[in-house]
Amino acid sequence: MSAAPPARTAAIVGGGVIGGGWAVRFLLHGWDVTVCDPNPGIEDQVRGILDNARVALPALADVPMPPEGRLTFATSVAAAVAAADWVQESVPEDLAIKREVIADIEAHAPGQAILASSTSGFKPSELRAEARHPGRVLVAHPFNPVYLLPAVEIVPGPGCDPDIAARAVRRLTAVGMKPLIVRNEIDAHLADRLLEAVWREALWLVNDDIATTGEIDEVMRNGFGLRWAQMGLFDTYRLAGGEQGMAHFIRQFGPALEWPWTKLTDVPELSEALVDKIAAQSDAQSSRYAFRELERIRDSNLVGILRALKDRDWGAGAVLNAHDRELARRHAAEAVFSDDADVSRPLRLLSCSVLPAWIDYNGHMTDFRYAEVFSRTSDALLRLIGMDAEYVAAGSSYYTVETHINYVAEVAAHARLHVTAQVLMADARRLHVYFELYATSDDRLLASSESMYLHVDRDSGRVCEAGEEIVRNAARIASAHGRLPRPAAAGRHVGQRG
Amino acid sequence: MSAAPPARTAAIVGGGVIGGGWAVRFLLHGWDVTVCDPNPGIEDQVRGILDNARVALPALADVPMPPEGRLTFATSVAAAVAAADWVQESVPEDLAIKREVIADIEAHAPGQAILASSTSGFKPSELRAEARHPGRVLVAHPFNPVYLLPAVEIVPGPGCDPDIAARAVRRLTAVGMKPLIVRNEIDAHLADRLLEAVWREALWLVNDDIATTGEIDEVMRNGFGLRWAQMGLFDTYRLAGGEQGMAHFIRQFGPALEWPWTKLTDVPELSEALVDKIAAQSDAQSSRYAFRELERIRDSNLVGILRALKDRDWGAGAVLNAHDRELARRHAAEAVFSDDADVSRPLRLLSCSVLPAWIDYNGHMTDFRYAEVFSRTSDALLRLIGMDAEYVAAGSSYYTVETHINYVAEVAAHARLHVTAQVLMADARRLHVYFELYATSDDRLLASSESMYLHVDRDSGRVCEAGEEIVRNAARIASAHGRLPRPAAAGRHVGQRG
Repeated sequence: MSAAPPARTAAIVGGGVIGGGWAVRFLLHGWDVTVCDPNPGIEDQVRGILDNARVALPALADVPMPPEGRLTFATSVAAAVAAADWVQESVPEDLAIKREVIADIEAHAPGQAILASSTSGFKPSELRAEARHPGRVLVAHPFNPVYLLPAVEIVPGPGCDPDIAARAVRRLTAVGMKPLIVRNEIDAHLADRLLEAVWREALWLVNDDIATTGEIDEVMRNGFGLRWAQMGLFDTYRLAGGEQGMAHFIRQFGPALEWPWTKLTDVPELSEALVDKIAAQSDAQSSRYAFRELERIRDSNLVGILRALKDRDWGAGAVLNAHDRELARRHAAEAVFSDDADVSRPLRLLSCSVLPAWIDYNGHMTDFRYAEVFSRTSDALLRLIGMDAEYVAAGSSYYTVETHINYVAEVAAHARLHVTAQVLMADARRLHVYFELYATSDDRLLASSESMYLHVDRDSGRVCEAGEEIVRNAARIASAHGRLPRPAAAGRHVGQRG
Repeated sequence: MSAAPPARTAAIVGGGVIGGGWAVRFLLHGWDVTVCDPNPGIEDQVRGILDNARVALPALADVPMPPEGRLTFATSVAAAVAAADWVQESVPEDLAIKREVIADIEAHAPGQAILASSTSGFKPSELRAEARHPGRVLVAHPFNPVYLLPAVEIVPGPGCDPDIAARAVRRLTAVGMKPLIVRNEIDAHLADRLLEAVWREALWLVNDDIATTGEIDEVMRNGFGLRWAQMGLFDTYRLAGGEQGMAHFIRQFGPALEWPWTKLTDVPELSEALVDKIAAQSDAQSSRYAFRELERIRDSNLVGILRALKDRDWGAGAVLNAHDRELARRHAAEAVFSDDADVSRPLRLLSCSVLPAWIDYNGHMTDFRYAEVFSRTSDALLRLIGMDAEYVAAGSSYYTVETHINYVAEVAAHARLHVTAQVLMADARRLHVYFELYATSDDRLLASSESMYLHVDRDSGRVCEAGEEIVRNAARIASAHGRLPRPAAAGRHVGQRG
């Protein structure tokens, strides 16, 4: 059994949307976190973010996440940073304030702590100009929601200790992020230069009454936003140029750059009238959703998109898969199929929530979505006993031959679900499993399912013996579960009474 | 029985990446399409796009798509447009060429045809300045890949016949798109103004060696691209401002607009050196993928993202769901049950094909998708005996209480399927049905399913008697089917031999 990685401690100085997002990302990856913010509502705010993150972030993982860390609040920077390995400064975007806070942190943080700033715009050389230990200060600029989006820009800048930058990359990779080193410090790093350009142009479109905020969002999310989510800008244009490639594309579309398409030389004045116009259009577009509700919708969308990319091992999905592999490697010895794992009770293998599209005309989850949830649970069970992608690729797999579902109760959209599995019988070729689906909020039984699986040689389609490790793991679980009472709903035929 | 919608005919003038994308979107939605392009490789190119689109687009649909239209190639504009309802101009971005092509189209197209231009930048008033029937000309600017991304900017501009614009919206909605009316014509419409701003800024970052093309793509697809894919810009910032809302966000971040973050006043010179640098970086990033392969990766990513949004009925996913409902409504009108219908044999109620997204890691249709097909067949049976949307809305419905599936054989992507239903028993409260799923090409049995349904008062959740018409129809079928042999696969429990 490998040693658990040492627990980490983070101090978050400034707990708004970004600081709060950092806090819950560290927490859900097992770090202890102290938040320091003068806002009297800070506890409620961070706990609100945590409630949303607890639903969304674990839905991205296919391996167990570490136990959640401990969240505390401090009333002074000194108290917050005293024991921190990592200090994340997320105070307002004002250079004088940031320098003051950095000085305060330096005076009280341990000597080996990394001091990272969430600044969107300032260069690290500006932040550390008055620091006593400038080599420990760098920029780690994340993206909202910090607990879901992997990207984080690491800007070491001149004067940063290279070891500190390397450690920062390792630490943030370990909490599931994709650190991108920005090699040359410039105002606004990389991403915010692009964001700023779009934002300015969008403000002009609204200011000039060419489009509303809602119309701009529609064209993005039905059009180019979908491209950027998975390929970014240049790979997208690589394909837009056709088979003649990238240089052809640039030569073809380059000249348009010199046409007056965008408001090159001008910045719209942010008058009260423009601010009010944007706020009113945004309200018309989305005020029917409460703030936390719109956050949850966004999180659910991001989870769906990220899981789709994970299935394809591409882009941000590839980042999540790499993180899973690392967690799996770390937790391998602790996993349930280790020799000393507790298999005396049914295994709780899946949790998910009821997606809106799973609801049918009766207002409840459609019957075949129950089948989908059970099917995903059986995949989790098979992975657990050793049937991974490599095993399937090598030529054999389990096939479902028979399934019997008993529907017990209805369930509505957004309800949290979990499924348990009890192995009724396992031999070298067969696996007979009984599942129960529960509503997590009140542990109410919603349905049960019973399935028989056969181990098949995929080329010939013939039943064959499973690999040794799989047979051993399945037998051990079956033997332990054999001491449990036989479920009354197993062995039924349709229409049977009672 | 309602008449099928009339077949449509499109002419695509200019068959590059955009023209080819239009061609296959129309084709796969059942239109006949003629493509006209002087490039001698045009047929191969369009068929290459079609090969990719045939895999990707049907993977988005949950209802049967219409049979594919007929694809032909013409050597002259005159021949291409002679019978067209819709002419899509997609020639290079040069106003003189576009005007010449539009004149050629006008000389030969039917009087009621819509003449749409794919232009990224020109205003419709510029395009139609020399047209004989300017009211029929408008901009319909799509996004690559045209066959997958729903967004299309419709710019009528001054002088467009309002009926033509309204018809254009209906036509493009019918091929699964989300037309966005741009109310005021400006250079580059809406989206390309935003794209242009990002593109210019990204060129500067590469030009100044701040970042490579690959680094820029990484920060987009791990960061803000994921936000824009599902919420666009303004809803994203609505959430970035925290609970204080949109006006707070703008006042907080507005001042940064006046800082010199972006290259406001300058356009990078597209020197050979810059073009070569970008092409070399793009090659380093992605030349390990062949062009069509990278397209397939992109398509598969987009399908995954769009399906995730479809499950959540949000953004582009809500557009796809609305399109499915429209297709389903059209199909439902074809299903009827009359007193003289032949019910002496099991009823053939559903046909569909195996969608690519239904395939699992074993290379066959996933187990729960069998359950989905049976579930949809039961919906068809219930509709047939009289349980329509109105009946459900009035307060009662059938609920599934038990289902038993026997899996007999595997089935691969794109296979045609059909399902038969045999009513085993029906009384005022219960319905007991046995289904068989077949591969249509060789009538091979793939699976059977047996389900019990109870008629329920939806408010109280209590079992109650169904409406008279439903009870009578169900009883008539059950009585006829009672003379058929009892299926051997009915009444089984899981693990039963033989």
